[in-house]
Amino acid sequence: MRILVLGGDGYLGWPTALYLSRRGHDVGVVDSFARRQYDFEMGVDSLVPIVHLQQRVRRWKELSGLTVEPFVGDLTDAAFVTGTLGTFRPDAVVHFAEQRSAPYSMIDRQHAVYTQVNNVVGTLNLLYAIAEQDRDVHLVKLGTMGEYGTPNIDIEEGYLEITHRGRTDVLPYPKQPGSFYHLSKVHDSHNIMFACRIWGIRATDLNQGIVYGHETEETKLHPDLATRFDYDGVFGTVLNRFCVQAVTGHPLTVYGSGGQTRGMLNILDTLACIELAVEHPAERGEFRVFNQFTESFSVKQLAEQVAEVHGPGTTIENVEDPRVEKEEHYYRAAHTKLLDLGLVPHLLTDDVVRSLLEVCERHRDRVDPTAIRPTVEWRQTASRLATASGLHGRGDEVGAARS
Amino acid sequence: MRILVLGGDGYLGWPTALYLSRRGHDVGVVDSFARRQYDFEMGVDSLVPIVHLQQRVRRWKELSGLTVEPFVGDLTDAAFVTGTLGTFRPDAVVHFAEQRSAPYSMIDRQHAVYTQVNNVVGTLNLLYAIAEQDRDVHLVKLGTMGEYGTPNIDIEEGYLEITHRGRTDVLPYPKQPGSFYHLSKVHDSHNIMFACRIWGIRATDLNQGIVYGHETEETKLHPDLATRFDYDGVFGTVLNRFCVQAVTGHPLTVYGSGGQTRGMLNILDTLACIELAVEHPAERGEFRVFNQFTESFSVKQLAEQVAEVHGPGTTIENVEDPRVEKEEHYYRAAHTKLLDLGLVPHLLTDDVVRSLLEVCERHRDRVDPTAIRPTVEWRQTASRLATASGLHGRGDEVGAARS
Repeated sequence: MRILVLGGDGYLGWPTALYLSRRGHDVGVVDSFARRQYDFEMGVDSLVPIVHLQQRVRRWKELSGLTVEPFVGDLTDAAFVTGTLGTFRPDAVVHFAEQRSAPYSMIDRQHAVYTQVNNVVGTLNLLYAIAEQDRDVHLVKLGTMGEYGTPNIDIEEGYLEITHRGRTDVLPYPKQPGSFYHLSKVHDSHNIMFACRIWGIRATDLNQGIVYGHETEETKLHPDLATRFDYDGVFGTVLNRFCVQAVTGHPLTVYGSGGQTRGMLNILDTLACIELAVEHPAERGEFRVFNQFTESFSVKQLAEQVAEVHGPGTTIENVEDPRVEKEEHYYRAAHTKLLDLGLVPHLLTDDVVRSLLEVCERHRDRVDPTAIRPTVEWRQTASRLATASGLHGRGDEVGAARS
Repeated sequence: MRILVLGGDGYLGWPTALYLSRRGHDVGVVDSFARRQYDFEMGVDSLVPIVHLQQRVRRWKELSGLTVEPFVGDLTDAAFVTGTLGTFRPDAVVHFAEQRSAPYSMIDRQHAVYTQVNNVVGTLNLLYAIAEQDRDVHLVKLGTMGEYGTPNIDIEEGYLEITHRGRTDVLPYPKQPGSFYHLSKVHDSHNIMFACRIWGIRATDLNQGIVYGHETEETKLHPDLATRFDYDGVFGTVLNRFCVQAVTGHPLTVYGSGGQTRGMLNILDTLACIELAVEHPAERGEFRVFNQFTESFSVKQLAEQVAEVHGPGTTIENVEDPRVEKEEHYYRAAHTKLLDLGLVPHLLTDDVVRSLLEVCERHRDRVDPTAIRPTVEWRQTASRLATASGLHGRGDEVGAARS
């Protein structure tokens, strides 16, 4: 199959491109390097060094004999989207190319507007390009489990059968997202669902949990093939932060009581899920939703597991929760559709935590301890990042609607 | 009370401003004249001539002795929003200032992107300005009944109590909007609900039905105080189109079978509802939703009523539905909250239809019959409007994210 991976230079996009390439697909990667730009804005770096996309692609060719074709441009540039789809002619488009950090979207007005315009316009441009060129192209879109929030009933996969005053219908599952970033994904889901209805497009929305893990079969072949490892307060995910804190001798900082429970999955399962979705496309006109995670953990449980694996001396500190979220809540979410397609999960074992701690040990000298603390406060309208220049949001907000 | 009416130069914004002014409130109006710009783009005009905002405001002062303060600028310009709120210091903001035509949003990619960026960014800027300056300001936001779509269960006011696998929660009512415009309002609703939660803002979302009627107590005092009357295929609402078709001797064009049922209300009730909402503000942190309509009609029923009132010779023609919508469906929607606050509805009597026909007769020489036919096709990605220059969307899409 011909598969275009949007955001193919990112944490998950790059390993996905390599995985699909190795499994015999013709893969193109699209990226604007916005993610690398955020590093300049924040003054932080991936803990694991990453090389330029061009060098990654050359190294992959050298080691595997396989070609991954790079396309450099931004999805908010409609002419670029149309041109790229027309040139590559994909059977499937895997869409990771969005601003994906909740704290980043909550820095201030500019970052909220940037995130929503960037994500929503990029996806609209993509939907129009597919509808214009080939309505059989299967859009595999990365959503997030965070679209659902934490309702007091079971979370289902995208839809809910509701009986009300004696009548029944199957309706989109109600959404209660918790940041302007999560909201942008909810907006996308509604837009894509509508495009499927009016244009007969095929789409799969993968409501992904929090991904952990760093190495894949492909990325570990050579340091040049490594993917990012983010641990900072804005882009770092919780398990990465805890591991970096553990190896640098800092307490593991749990936001609030730590009862916040979230679906999670191993990076290896992300790759497998994407492949399952691509190889079993949605029907024409179908907006299909999969909940893409394998296990649920509370933040407290994660901290305890890291502390135990890392050993004596590792402490846990409860800090004030900068977010507005329930610290204790009901959480039970369905995730059977990918299992039905054949997913065999890799679980969060102590060995997995150990491998993450090893990554952190190996690059310990690259850790910037000032980058880990939470700096973005949901209740405020503007957070001052010590490291931020304040220039980025303004620039990109305008750029995002160009063309 | 000090009330700022955003979109105060438009069809409903202007009569609302006058009504609130006459009822003793201090009123400011904000407008970018985007609506007048769409007329240039489409090459059509309001059937009833309208004068400049500055002249309207002067005439109102002359006739009533009351001041309505105009602010000219665009909500997508954050500095303008911040400055205007800071200068006027409103107790309530009534927000009509969005691109409000479903067909306009479906013309092509540029118009879809423009509509979503314009509406979502304008509302985000407003939410930030309120959160920064005064979280007690009550935001009264115009939504639409079209956010709900046509589910096979009763539509409730914003929320739905759902029991699922033995547990119960009250969740946002699931939305199935039918155009990129309607989707922009759903995005707004989610963004506003979140802002209420994190910042403790007060907001009322008025999910309004289709408004009919032209004159109010205030606008009929002088021709300079008249509001717009749109009848074209892009901005004209269904009843206006039927009345113009009747007086010009054309068949009333019903899209499809005409079983599409929608909530409707008289312009006089819009004014009353806004005042009720403003005078009974939402609680701090409350995102309150009212369904603002008084009666439901199918398109077929409306055509039949106009034909009967207009008299012999008026014919009805079923044309292919350019939209993607159910032509026959269940429709029952709650609308009791405004009645509970004291709303006394003005119903769609034959006299009301007669008064609309009279408006059309009076301005019959201004009718452009080529403007009435539907030109925007939901199933296509680009509709060529005979009258459109094609320049507007591109320009404003960029403008929408400036600041």
